[in-house]
Amino acid sequence: MSPHIPTLRFKPLGIDTASEHVVYMSAGCHVCRAEGFAAQTRIEVSAGERSLIATLNTVSGGLLEIDEVSLSNAAQRELGLRPGDALSFSHVPVLASESFLRAKIYGERLAPAELDTIVQDIVAGRLSDLHLAAFVSACAGERLDQGETLALTRAMVAAGSRLQWDRRPVVDKHCVGGLPGNRTTPIVVAIATACGLTMPKTSSRAITSPAGTADTMEVLAPVNLDLAAIRRVVERTGGCVVWGGAMQLSPADDMLIRIERPLDLDSDGQLVASILSKKLAAGSSHVLIDIPLGPSAKVRDPMTAARLASRLKAVGEALEMVVRVEVTDGRQPVGRGVGPALEARDVLQVLACDPQAPADLRARALLLAGRVLEMGGVAAEGQGMSRAIEVLDSRRAWRQFELICEAQGGLRAVPLAPLREPVLARQAGRVASIDNRVLARIAKLAGAPQSKAAGLDMHVSAGDRVAIGQPLFTVHAEAPGELSYALAYAEAHPGVVALEGEA
Amino acid sequence: MSPHIPTLRFKPLGIDTASEHVVYMSAGCHVCRAEGFAAQTRIEVSAGERSLIATLNTVSGGLLEIDEVSLSNAAQRELGLRPGDALSFSHVPVLASESFLRAKIYGERLAPAELDTIVQDIVAGRLSDLHLAAFVSACAGERLDQGETLALTRAMVAAGSRLQWDRRPVVDKHCVGGLPGNRTTPIVVAIATACGLTMPKTSSRAITSPAGTADTMEVLAPVNLDLAAIRRVVERTGGCVVWGGAMQLSPADDMLIRIERPLDLDSDGQLVASILSKKLAAGSSHVLIDIPLGPSAKVRDPMTAARLASRLKAVGEALEMVVRVEVTDGRQPVGRGVGPALEARDVLQVLACDPQAPADLRARALLLAGRVLEMGGVAAEGQGMSRAIEVLDSRRAWRQFELICEAQGGLRAVPLAPLREPVLARQAGRVASIDNRVLARIAKLAGAPQSKAAGLDMHVSAGDRVAIGQPLFTVHAEAPGELSYALAYAEAHPGVVALEGEA
Repeated sequence: MSPHIPTLRFKPLGIDTASEHVVYMSAGCHVCRAEGFAAQTRIEVSAGERSLIATLNTVSGGLLEIDEVSLSNAAQRELGLRPGDALSFSHVPVLASESFLRAKIYGERLAPAELDTIVQDIVAGRLSDLHLAAFVSACAGERLDQGETLALTRAMVAAGSRLQWDRRPVVDKHCVGGLPGNRTTPIVVAIATACGLTMPKTSSRAITSPAGTADTMEVLAPVNLDLAAIRRVVERTGGCVVWGGAMQLSPADDMLIRIERPLDLDSDGQLVASILSKKLAAGSSHVLIDIPLGPSAKVRDPMTAARLASRLKAVGEALEMVVRVEVTDGRQPVGRGVGPALEARDVLQVLACDPQAPADLRARALLLAGRVLEMGGVAAEGQGMSRAIEVLDSRRAWRQFELICEAQGGLRAVPLAPLREPVLARQAGRVASIDNRVLARIAKLAGAPQSKAAGLDMHVSAGDRVAIGQPLFTVHAEAPGELSYALAYAEAHPGVVALEGEA
Repeated sequence: MSPHIPTLRFKPLGIDTASEHVVYMSAGCHVCRAEGFAAQTRIEVSAGERSLIATLNTVSGGLLEIDEVSLSNAAQRELGLRPGDALSFSHVPVLASESFLRAKIYGERLAPAELDTIVQDIVAGRLSDLHLAAFVSACAGERLDQGETLALTRAMVAAGSRLQWDRRPVVDKHCVGGLPGNRTTPIVVAIATACGLTMPKTSSRAITSPAGTADTMEVLAPVNLDLAAIRRVVERTGGCVVWGGAMQLSPADDMLIRIERPLDLDSDGQLVASILSKKLAAGSSHVLIDIPLGPSAKVRDPMTAARLASRLKAVGEALEMVVRVEVTDGRQPVGRGVGPALEARDVLQVLACDPQAPADLRARALLLAGRVLEMGGVAAEGQGMSRAIEVLDSRRAWRQFELICEAQGGLRAVPLAPLREPVLARQAGRVASIDNRVLARIAKLAGAPQSKAAGLDMHVSAGDRVAIGQPLFTVHAEAPGELSYALAYAEAHPGVVALEGEA
């Protein structure tokens, strides 16, 4: 803006703010004085050709010299900075997206081009976390209509990378979430690809749950593959189960989710855009969406499930994807394990047709695999499930899964946690309900998903009769502190497994 | 929550995040591992009996030892910490205010008790900036009805301190803002108190403008008075013009304004609650509100002004305050100076009946003072202005102002900036309009309000004819860098004083 503004030298401070861009400057530095910058000012930071917008924190007391500047780790990575690099600064231009955002807040309907501009500015980091919080609030509930949802989905796909496959159909599945242990994906991929379908599955890591599909799969095989490696795996086996986070598929979605979670906001429109933008970007043509329904699942009533299903199908159709929705029982965890290794063990037991395999996980995986086979045209309508059973019980799914793991870098043994402690029933009774959210919390306190072997192993399910002192579940941990903290939390929340009668 | 969680030792890092609470911990520390804390987690931080909620930034690379913790300056101040103090940490409890906030986002009407809970949690720092952004978005436009506005106002008063005066009426004035140089307050206070009214005026410092009333008054006398000192000044003189920021009058207002500004959101309900909560907390019984109306003022159309006026009066009445609204001309700056010292000079010229005094500032101050005299019952309806003229022209207002300044700590001389540079007309023409926002920006770039003498001095007003090369305004600065930066910005924005005809 003006030639005489001095640059500052970059000094790394190692501050991790997740993905928020923060710039640190000495309060008395020339730039702050000349530009009138104060704490919380939004500033455009440039290093050569690259630039981003960051929020200012001023620093006093020797952390930075007067001619030094620092950035949060995410911003440092994005600019590719090394110590001593020269940075320059300017005021943030007024963005058109800010006025579109205000229009939405005031209740107006946004045009596709306006949503495009907002999404582009989100991905470029030009909008602050405050703007993002305002945006998700303005879109909450049912404030995005179907046309806006479609436009938002398209904008989110356009603002990221997109995978192309020269096969068709490309099938996919997605679970709306909130159900610990619901790890059907590796099984469905094994069955679908064993039947000749193409299913290149990109999964996420846990954000607030004890394990994401990518965390669980990582126990069994490498999942951090680049695009070339993924293509080799899919060419050889027809499918994969890899981490999608590095591929920049709908990056706006990741940024909005980061804001939605702490606010705990639900938005039909954003949920649909989130799911379908990822699928469209991943190159899927046929998508099965599993909506677990239950009092402590993400979707808690049938009306919401029906509304969501209808919106998903309509927007999917407009995007030329075939979308099918399966509403499933979400009243309690699926399988026995909660946590990456314990869930991986359940998956292997089902694939290996182990008599110990959890029946509920097997049944759900077969149901969903059957639907995928029908959608993909390799089973007639109504015949998918029996085809899936045949493929699983003949061990063809298991051999297929071994092939996929080998192609991804080699099948690994499942680790067992060194520390294990049961939580016992304080009374006799029948298991009335299980609180998925408290259960997830206990598994996280035990160290999941960072500690792969940590989590918990369920010994009962809803309807079971238990005697006093009988183990309800066992907490697994890798460190004594984590074990005792998870046990203390379980102790404080005896209702996690609610018992009734015979008290 | 659990006794074995270790504490960490406080180490100051001197990071200023404005009022946001941030806690810094080593990524590998026991607390992060045991509690599952990661960057952006909200954490309850306790030091003895005191606690607050802060957002986590994790740190690597030696800034903090594994058993050390740091806090942003605001959080450190709030907990009263010294280096080495032991801090403990826990997960943030689920807050009822979060579900009320979600209800508002989803479009529900909030009950008074719900707004109370939200405001209490805002003031206690229990809600994050993301929650605040969601709240101001959910209340934007006309989303708060009159009952909610009243309840929000009451909640904001209840969550702060309240001044009590044993006199009545206690008159007050407030300007909705957006008009540089509109510094009528010291003049109105002098006239009103000269007529025997009680007018203990608490003013704010600039947030985004080149000068707040407190900044301008500080050029003339000390304004950082504690409550006891203010009471002495008011007992002696009937009035004061002091900074209200330290008195915790409606602190929720300050916190919401900090979020609203960067989002640039207008909300009838929040504006009314903001103004009236401050006035009720300050103990005012009769309040005159000045709404400047103009294309670059805060209120830009007569409909908005009328709607705002009616809401202000209705809510004021319910709070047993007499509220009167005066919509004034907001098309251009008032007076000649923009910046603390230059505005103080204008004020003194008016009070001293200097023939050089800016006529527009004098006229506005007399209009508003007249209304205040009428509201306070010391002038009959329609006689206020002539009474005000009499008090001003007889120098009684000036002597009264000297008394107030003496009581506040002594009248000071107005400084003149060492660096002054005129900005010249590039063509001949008639001044069609003046952009208040660009003008304010130039004054801020010149150093206002931190540099008291910085700002600019207008030489023309709308309707004036100017010759090519004639000075339009003079930039005043204390540092060469600030002067040249303000001039560069003025150069880049020749439309700040728009000339038409005779080109």
